[in-house]
Amino acid sequence: MPDIGYLNGHFSPLEEISISPDDRGFLFGDGVYEVIRAYHGVPAFWSEHFNRLIRSAKEIKIHFSIEPLQFLGLLLSGLRQSGYQEGKIYIQVTRGVAPREHAFPSNGAPTVFLAFRQMVALAVEVCQQGVSVITLPDTRWHRCDIKSLNLLPNVLAKQQAREAKAFEGIFLRDGQVTEGATSNIFAVKNGVLITPERNHLVLAGVTQQQVVILAQEKGWEVQFRPIRLSELLQSDEVFLVGTTIEVLPVIQVNGQPIQDGKPGPISIALQQSFSSYLAGLTLS
Amino acid sequence: MPDIGYLNGHFSPLEEISISPDDRGFLFGDGVYEVIRAYHGVPAFWSEHFNRLIRSAKEIKIHFSIEPLQFLGLLLSGLRQSGYQEGKIYIQVTRGVAPREHAFPSNGAPTVFLAFRQMVALAVEVCQQGVSVITLPDTRWHRCDIKSLNLLPNVLAKQQAREAKAFEGIFLRDGQVTEGATSNIFAVKNGVLITPERNHLVLAGVTQQQVVILAQEKGWEVQFRPIRLSELLQSDEVFLVGTTIEVLPVIQVNGQPIQDGKPGPISIALQQSFSSYLAGLTLS
Repeated sequence: MPDIGYLNGHFSPLEEISISPDDRGFLFGDGVYEVIRAYHGVPAFWSEHFNRLIRSAKEIKIHFSIEPLQFLGLLLSGLRQSGYQEGKIYIQVTRGVAPREHAFPSNGAPTVFLAFRQMVALAVEVCQQGVSVITLPDTRWHRCDIKSLNLLPNVLAKQQAREAKAFEGIFLRDGQVTEGATSNIFAVKNGVLITPERNHLVLAGVTQQQVVILAQEKGWEVQFRPIRLSELLQSDEVFLVGTTIEVLPVIQVNGQPIQDGKPGPISIALQQSFSSYLAGLTLS
Repeated sequence: MPDIGYLNGHFSPLEEISISPDDRGFLFGDGVYEVIRAYHGVPAFWSEHFNRLIRSAKEIKIHFSIEPLQFLGLLLSGLRQSGYQEGKIYIQVTRGVAPREHAFPSNGAPTVFLAFRQMVALAVEVCQQGVSVITLPDTRWHRCDIKSLNLLPNVLAKQQAREAKAFEGIFLRDGQVTEGATSNIFAVKNGVLITPERNHLVLAGVTQQQVVILAQEKGWEVQFRPIRLSELLQSDEVFLVGTTIEVLPVIQVNGQPIQDGKPGPISIALQQSFSSYLAGLTLS
């Protein structure tokens, strides 16, 4: 079956969907988004993603209102039409279509767009061996807690990482780690997990939150606090988390190995716990 | 005649143009733009806008290549098809269409979109009476010299201004004026014009540049340097410049009148000089 799209109330093959060039998503990046993975047909953490989508929209004053179960219904309907058990669902809400003017249009409804594609997960070897990252200045705006479409700095950071043969670019603001271009980050030192505090400069990650819960269930302390680059480099372990990468060990930062340059035991344990959690997901 | 659009080599009525939801402009704001006004059929400062568009694209590594005269040809062709003598031309170049992934697509051409609409100028009374502005924190990213589609902070600032019954929101970074959400700004003190220096935090305005030239022709000194809010409030005159507003006196900042709350003589003189300059524009 083909990739499935949804636009403002209607499902269709994704390739048949088209957008107005006057959509404020296209003209201003004036919108918000989420990415949800489905495992064996179950959209993981759909409620958390839903809540964050609603919050993001509210923060930029997009009047987008949908009931949680109606949202879930869209996800399940699109998945069913696509036939994908392992799916990647992209959800984007913009301030809608109007002749180009910065201030909000006086009327008009938001654009609601979803795309259902098959998930192509990272290669097992990459997950097992871990990845390299580079750091780069966090030049983004001051509301990175909003999952908005203004992603140009993230795009440039990810590309810069790729050109450095690294998997991810890690942002540093005033010398402190904020997050990756497409992920959150954890450091581990002496059995304690550290991840940057959740404020207006960092996205509150859904996977991050679940990993915190899993770590705490194992009795490991988690600190939400700033991480300086020097502290990151001297960590026992470093790993990334995110919807598409799940838990991914980092073995090298800026060309310098983390400890012996191999995934550490806590990273591996959490990677496995998270996988087990996902394997057991049901729609309840 | 209808509004005219152009997409990747083809002109058509604007309303017939549609964009792929996989366009990186829609997904990431991964693109750049310009707005050009045509006066009596002549695209004003087309060469300056062209150069800035090419520079913006280059800064974010979009491989967009077009000869200046070919660019001018597009503008004139669209204007002719629209029939508009007083036109507003919007030009947007994105990194093109590809399945959503942050890093650059390995192949594929940029999306080139133009829209030709009739210009609806500000009411004469507004231009004569001047406008109010508010100031607000500049929370934007650190490459405001690039005219990119990541415009959410500008959208929110313009809306905040409107809700405060002001015409424009003026950004303050570390207490210093950078620019308006959609304009550059000048202060005048003791016959000297002051406008923020051109660096990575400010867009180098085309109208701003022409106003500097006109001021210098009149023998007035122009300083490119930081302006603190307190200095702005104590100026003899304040005015905004931009493609759609030309030269627009500011009579009130944050509810506080600038001097006697009326447009000052230098603002008015430059407004008139700029109008005269535009009236005399030819395609040569």
